[in-house]
Amino acid sequence: MKTLHLELGQRSYPIYIGAALLSQTKLLAPHIVGKRVAIVTNETVAPLYLSQLRSQLASFQPLEVILPDGEQYKNLEVLNRIFDAMLTARCDRNTTLVALGGGVVGDMGGFAAACYQRGIPFIQIPTTLLAQVDSSVGGKTGVNHALGKNMIGAFYQPRAVVIDTDTLKTLPDRELSAGLAEVIKYGVIRDAEFFSWLEANMDKLLLRDSSALAYAIHRSCQSKADVVAADEREGGVRATLNFGHTFGHAIETGLGYGAWLHGEAIAAGMVMAADLSRRLKWLSAADATRIENLIRRARLPVCAPAKLSAARFLELMAVDKKVLDGHMRLVLLKRLGEAIVTAEYPRVELEATLASVRDAA
Amino acid sequence: MKTLHLELGQRSYPIYIGAALLSQTKLLAPHIVGKRVAIVTNETVAPLYLSQLRSQLASFQPLEVILPDGEQYKNLEVLNRIFDAMLTARCDRNTTLVALGGGVVGDMGGFAAACYQRGIPFIQIPTTLLAQVDSSVGGKTGVNHALGKNMIGAFYQPRAVVIDTDTLKTLPDRELSAGLAEVIKYGVIRDAEFFSWLEANMDKLLLRDSSALAYAIHRSCQSKADVVAADEREGGVRATLNFGHTFGHAIETGLGYGAWLHGEAIAAGMVMAADLSRRLKWLSAADATRIENLIRRARLPVCAPAKLSAARFLELMAVDKKVLDGHMRLVLLKRLGEAIVTAEYPRVELEATLASVRDAA
Repeated sequence: MKTLHLELGQRSYPIYIGAALLSQTKLLAPHIVGKRVAIVTNETVAPLYLSQLRSQLASFQPLEVILPDGEQYKNLEVLNRIFDAMLTARCDRNTTLVALGGGVVGDMGGFAAACYQRGIPFIQIPTTLLAQVDSSVGGKTGVNHALGKNMIGAFYQPRAVVIDTDTLKTLPDRELSAGLAEVIKYGVIRDAEFFSWLEANMDKLLLRDSSALAYAIHRSCQSKADVVAADEREGGVRATLNFGHTFGHAIETGLGYGAWLHGEAIAAGMVMAADLSRRLKWLSAADATRIENLIRRARLPVCAPAKLSAARFLELMAVDKKVLDGHMRLVLLKRLGEAIVTAEYPRVELEATLASVRDAA
Repeated sequence: MKTLHLELGQRSYPIYIGAALLSQTKLLAPHIVGKRVAIVTNETVAPLYLSQLRSQLASFQPLEVILPDGEQYKNLEVLNRIFDAMLTARCDRNTTLVALGGGVVGDMGGFAAACYQRGIPFIQIPTTLLAQVDSSVGGKTGVNHALGKNMIGAFYQPRAVVIDTDTLKTLPDRELSAGLAEVIKYGVIRDAEFFSWLEANMDKLLLRDSSALAYAIHRSCQSKADVVAADEREGGVRATLNFGHTFGHAIETGLGYGAWLHGEAIAAGMVMAADLSRRLKWLSAADATRIENLIRRARLPVCAPAKLSAARFLELMAVDKKVLDGHMRLVLLKRLGEAIVTAEYPRVELEATLASVRDAA
């Protein structure tokens, strides 16, 4: 097992990465406040891993809240089911919420913990690659709104993140690829060396070579932890982690949540952001091609869906959280391995990207 | 105008108290972040004060969100209307939310600000006595759940609180009395001298003598600010501000939100908590009587409603946020002017209070 630390003063916490962590006794207990836990998971993950976790936590009277599986359920209404269950079971402020599942479970469980009785402790146990390398680390929690993704939420840090790499053995191929999108992102925006490593090791990752996966998760989490420690509330550098996300969120919202996986939408969004960076003559054409090729090798989409018109795309992008005082800021690449947040790009170039990085209708 | 300061390090903010503040230009502008404001108010307050505020904020493209009036609307569903309106109007993270109204508007507006795009700045402009002396100061925000009051929320501090004492001129008598319940509370739990002042000046307050009201508001806000500065997240002394609230919340939840005003329920709850403190031989019988008399003079209820049985009361009290690991902690009085939070009381004495401080059926 390896341990990373996210340094946030009083809110610092460990990130444990290793095999068979779900069956390690004594790993979770020191991070549980009070005598009780509420486990939030979903109907896909529960049959696979809930019994293991339940036996670890038997002494904490575990309440189990099982949500439906899918991004389309990440909303206030389903969030309220967590509150219903916890209030009915009389969970008090000293209850520790444990989120066991992918990004949706982690985001909703974390937001429920942030709001329940104005805040209770929580622990993230991510079971998808995407959640392990991205959403479980850094304290972004929330739900979607019909008018925009992750529009309702809180910055709320967990007490610990437990990444059991064995859970990837049951992950569907499509979800593995979706997680690789975020892994590739770290290489693209801040770690060109890791990008090259990914080019050399993509086949191993797709074959689920456990040491390659463990290395990629560790290096990704290290990147995330470094960025979040420097800028917890996204006043600056943290926004670069949203590379591809303004485009990607437009795809997710435009198609309806759940049509494309988050990682798939972000993959296409990264190709779009790289294309725009190339048009601005910041990124070389060769590196733009390398990015597109690596994303394609990870079995991810490299174009926006044909059914979203450029006009609709612009409309959807305009509600992004990075919009400030009417200026649509985007994360773009100065070069491979270096991203910036900027509103300084000609609108016509953005429109050219929207017109060209698109599936044939 | 008088200015108090709530000292919370980087999150410190001023509390302005005075007449005609809503028509003072330049008071609000320095606290507004970005180019845009969203005003959240309700259908009762809007016809009275919205136009004044709108003209102050004309240069900030004000969006207006008008909610229905009443505690029964303080829930996630109505909260979502604020998000709907703000997303439809494309309010971004640099929008400042201004809550204009009583406690319900302030609690919901503040919680909306806490959650919208994971947090935007906000300003409280309380227009009821209760909101002016209590809920607008200190950063407690949230909504009710069918199973418990204020169960969903956040600690989220405003950038400024603007208390225009002229708004009390339009306040219904019943609401004025409800606000006095919280004013009396400060005397009871930590300021015996103020309690005596209230005994001497209750008639003036009920006649809305403006200097008496201004003094009571200032002294109450000073108490609140001192307690919150010492314990922002209610780890200790702040919990004493909930004197009467565990009983009161049971009344509110048990009767259905909106049947009794919050201040009315808290008034009866304070008499109950004083009665229990007397039974424990901490509070003298004479002081328990003084408390009950002052509350009665403020035209507030001094008994729980007959229709709530003692058993139902205990059930409702058990979901209170002060319950920890199964122990029901209560705020009780060591003497007039000194409150403590404790789970050390014989259950039989609590039952005696529940049986005796009750309207005849």
